[in-house]
Amino acid sequence: LIIVSDLEGVLIPEIWEEIARVTGVADLAMTTHDEPDFGKLMDHRIELLQARDLRLPVLSSIASDVLPYPGATELLAWMRTKAQVMIASDTFHEFSESIVQRMGGYNLFANTFRTDDRGRIVGYRLRIRGRKDNVIRSLKEIGFRILAIGDGYNDELMFRVADHAILFNAPDDLVGRVPHGQIASDYEDIRQIVLDAWRRKEAGEFETQPAQTSDH
Amino acid sequence: LIIVSDLEGVLIPEIWEEIARVTGVADLAMTTHDEPDFGKLMDHRIELLQARDLRLPVLSSIASDVLPYPGATELLAWMRTKAQVMIASDTFHEFSESIVQRMGGYNLFANTFRTDDRGRIVGYRLRIRGRKDNVIRSLKEIGFRILAIGDGYNDELMFRVADHAILFNAPDDLVGRVPHGQIASDYEDIRQIVLDAWRRKEAGEFETQPAQTSDH
Repeated sequence: LIIVSDLEGVLIPEIWEEIARVTGVADLAMTTHDEPDFGKLMDHRIELLQARDLRLPVLSSIASDVLPYPGATELLAWMRTKAQVMIASDTFHEFSESIVQRMGGYNLFANTFRTDDRGRIVGYRLRIRGRKDNVIRSLKEIGFRILAIGDGYNDELMFRVADHAILFNAPDDLVGRVPHGQIASDYEDIRQIVLDAWRRKEAGEFETQPAQTSDH
Repeated sequence: LIIVSDLEGVLIPEIWEEIARVTGVADLAMTTHDEPDFGKLMDHRIELLQARDLRLPVLSSIASDVLPYPGATELLAWMRTKAQVMIASDTFHEFSESIVQRMGGYNLFANTFRTDDRGRIVGYRLRIRGRKDNVIRSLKEIGFRILAIGDGYNDELMFRVADHAILFNAPDDLVGRVPHGQIASDYEDIRQIVLDAWRRKEAGEFETQPAQTSDH
């Protein structure tokens, strides 16, 4: 069993919101709810940062001061006793790596910024955005059972290819589009769903996977 | 950058050797050097265990007392500051999970035993054996650069598909069959090779990957 969890909204607050709050640039808190085109949204953010000469080291520092949601670190540690744990996020490594290190150093698959030699953000590299489902499809092909945890529309493709999908405080219309999704509104809900999936796996309920087996 | 490392022979000693030593069943130390057919080797091991009524809890306990090689935990922690780190091993989860937890809880992809309700090993499930290259191929397809670390013939396919291959105290004929392989005989060698790969990646030397990028 491999658990692939989203980061912002599930384990930690939205990082851009914290950056907007600390820098006083309210528009930096805009999300894909305000501007559905992620490329345009990022272009707008980069313009705002450049106009105020806000460089990556300052932004990373603000991001690194974000606290995980209460109980998130403990939830991850517990999940790791039942499964492998990975974090797949639309955020950026430069914003989230230090938080993830403090939470236990789980593998983090996220996007990265491009900077000039003075630390000014000049672009970005989208490695995970729109690709979470690829990560999961690949892991499934190797023969692993996947449990995905997410909270938003950008998790929909991931949910669709995962064997188990936990929708954490997700919008109703998203819930309606993921037929096998299970709803969670707190970490105890997540724990129960993970435990159930783990018990069923341990009981051999899903033993139709391609992994080579041998009985003596 | 994702670092995929073998476990036994690279980070910890051979677990079956420790089990052979503690139980006094010398034949349990046999490896694929003695019996190249892994299925036959495992069948032989299971026969030996059944004949002496050595059950999984006892074996797991012996395995959990194995110490990592000096410096292995520190090497993993350092590598995690430069890349994502995964362990892919032909060993069994029941033997290695507790050691990996003590080393930092990295994701471990290994095989699992099948037991009866009294803990007697009756078979196994090969999830990683002969599949390390699949793991790496999948991760590459998503757009990650892969550095593989291993020590034996069972790592050859993994080495072939990886972008960087570190052969740790590997046999000469294996070295000859991995043209892009880099030889390491201690952890300092590994550190230097990882550092070089990381620096080249950071310098943008490998920027022909399929990840979507945008320059503002």
